Amino acid sequence: MEKLERYRQLVQNLLTDFASYQYPDSEIQSQLVFDTTHDQYQVVQTGWENEKRIYFIPLHFSIKNNKIWLEQNNTDRLVAEELVEAGVPREDIVLAIHPPYVRPHTGFATE
Amino acid sequence: MEKLERYRQLVQNLLTDFASYQYPDSEIQSQLVFDTTHDQYQVVQTGWENEKRIYFIPLHFSIKNNKIWLEQNNTDRLVAEELVEAGVPREDIVLAIHPPYVRPHTGFATE
Repeated sequence: MEKLERYRQLVQNLLTDFASYQYPDSEIQSQLVFDTTHDQYQVVQTGWENEKRIYFIPLHFSIKNNKIWLEQNNTDRLVAEELVEAGVPREDIVLAIHPPYVRPHTGFATE
Repeated sequence: MEKLERYRQLVQNLLTDFASYQYPDSEIQSQLVFDTTHDQYQVVQTGWENEKRIYFIPLHFSIKNNKIWLEQNNTDRLVAEELVEAGVPREDIVLAIHPPYVRPHTGFATE
């Protein structure tokens, strides 16, 4: 499979797996958002806790320059390491959650 | 044009217009996210303010049950009214940002 297509499938699989977890006794729902044109991949959680609106983005990847960019990670999962285990080389992953000057020290790509 | 297709186009146009505004002297960028399969439509703003990561969702619509749902509005635009002006009847718009018990009093649909 072409690399880019494989990366798209990988992040979609990871997010689908994440979103499949249902919070017990909760009105929070996980919604997948996959934009294969702009190459943006997300899980959005929405719902109500008592009368408070929950709107939360636990995970967001984008794909730019043939690399996977981690745009948001509000989970306890080491998703970049999961991608490495799935065969993505570290030089094809950018931790966009870190400032550019920190990225050279992450062991992943800088841009 | 079929109603659903027209609604999809309307929210994409509204978001594209919103995202076209460039913040002067800023490293904040607006990214369109259009998922026409799950019918989720968003603008995501990312970037840096000094060393602080900005990750912000100003607007998010979904389309469910042939209606447009406003999932998030962190702007000063009355986007539901903009949709009405563009020809969407109020009974086809749900303000999901309000709790279900409030929606009957909004003049828009409840679900």
